[in-house]
Amino acid sequence: MECRVTESFARQTFMATLGASLVSVVPGEVVIELGHREVLVQQNGFLHAGVTTAVMDSACGYAALTMMSPDADVLSVEFKVNLLAPAVGSSFRAVGRVVKSGRTLTVCQGEMVALDSGKTVALMTATMMAVRK
Amino acid sequence: MECRVTESFARQTFMATLGASLVSVVPGEVVIELGHREVLVQQNGFLHAGVTTAVMDSACGYAALTMMSPDADVLSVEFKVNLLAPAVGSSFRAVGRVVKSGRTLTVCQGEMVALDSGKTVALMTATMMAVRK
Amino acid sequence: MECRVTESFARQTFMATLGASLVSVVPGEVVIELGHREVLVQQNGFLHAGVTTAVMDSACGYAALTMMSPDADVLSVEFKVNLLAPAVGSSFRAVGRVVKSGRTLTVCQGEMVALDSGKTVALMTATMMAVRK
Amino acid sequence: MECRVTESFARQTFMATLGASLVSVVPGEVVIELGHREVLVQQNGFLHAGVTTAVMDSACGYAALTMMSPDADVLSVEFKVNLLAPAVGSSFRAVGRVVKSGRTLTVCQGEMVALDSGKTVALMTATMMAVRK
Repeated sequence: MECRVTESFARQTFMATLGASLVSVVPGEVVIELGHREVLVQQNGFLHAGVTTAVMDSACGYAALTMMSPDADVLSVEFKVNLLAPAVGSSFRAVGRVVKSGRTLTVCQGEMVALDSGKTVALMTATMMAVRK
Repeated sequence: MECRVTESFARQTFMATLGASLVSVVPGEVVIELGHREVLVQQNGFLHAGVTTAVMDSACGYAALTMMSPDADVLSVEFKVNLLAPAVGSSFRAVGRVVKSGRTLTVCQGEMVALDSGKTVALMTATMMAVRK
Repeated sequence: MECRVTESFARQTFMATLGASLVSVVPGEVVIELGHREVLVQQNGFLHAGVTTAVMDSACGYAALTMMSPDADVLSVEFKVNLLAPAVGSSFRAVGRVVKSGRTLTVCQGEMVALDSGKTVALMTATMMAVRK
Repeated sequence: MECRVTESFARQTFMATLGASLVSVVPGEVVIELGHREVLVQQNGFLHAGVTTAVMDSACGYAALTMMSPDADVLSVEFKVNLLAPAVGSSFRAVGRVVKSGRTLTVCQGEMVALDSGKTVALMTATMMAVRK
């Protein structure tokens, strides 16, 4: 299961583009970390909301994948993000957790924390779908 | 007003990282386009949902900014994205439109279209906030 | 198809409790109307957001059902509501429309209009699921 | 503060229509309970999603109000609801909690539990706004 996530993460070139790394994979929970880089910001120098969303989405999607049968791949159906505070700091941790897993749909919640301050900068609720190959 | 958006967009280094370009700015509507690039994909080779979100968020945010007083900057409060179809194709267009503008909060809707097929790949509803400097 | 919706609506006792009536059913679009009643308000005398949500959810769910195979029933997976203006007025119309229909999931958008003023008071984006009996 | 919430809840006629009662009010958290009644259901006899939403919205809104200055009233800006399981059972508890409180906007999360089974039937994330009188 951890292998499946690690291999799939490695195929997400966008995670490499962001400089994000997969930190931990346990059943129902995935952690991704990301350092601040000048190429990732919006007009005020904060991490762009799209960056924050991307890592929370990947964390939630892979958390969902850990609960799915081995023949399934995962697709994001929808997500909702609340931006609680400007994403300032040198590094960030996104945690995705499964809240409810079903055969077809899995609901996850994600959180992005600025590691310098310990502040939660964003929350996600996401619906993920198992796609049988 | 168009200048404000153009200048702010130019400061969003993340838009350059994605290779996104600002195509049009009129009161209440902003269009951003993006080409497919290998560095922007998820595990199946589709555009990552975070990329789609980033350009729709910027389009919605700047659409909101066009309706705000000149002393305001814009911050994303929250957004919700539905991913309707895999983001396949060579180029994409995100349109952000103001649905309701208020002194403090502005509600926008965004749409991302794959230009090859004409298919809508994602929809966003976003709440934007005016921040007085 | 219209019969299926009409019969199902009649079993939703909560629609009767709200005094809501099914106004029209065409493929991909359902309209429900509702009069203002003193028993439906929040602390300021506006229609409670839960009432607004209930009728938009039913309109969206039945719009989705019109696109599903005859052996399917519909369940709401998730929805997102933006409250654009206080729901004041003597009567309201909720329209639910299918944006994207799939075998399992259907995405709908709903709108609630205050008929006296013509103002949109709320918007919904919803994901509906076909449940085979 | 508890008085403000109690008085405002009493003015929400819709809570009485639903048979909902305010169970507890502490800073940042409000609990509302609701019994199953035949007049509150959708087509399969489960609690209508609009009922679930209404009590979670009120719980979240009042949780937000407990953190606002005494001259403020609270309005719902937007919310997102995930329906995790059919709302079956004889009674339900909605808990609304403040996740982030600001001068203007407060973000809350709500949860609805079926008390017979202990199952979470729905989750809400909501943005609430302080309105100065």
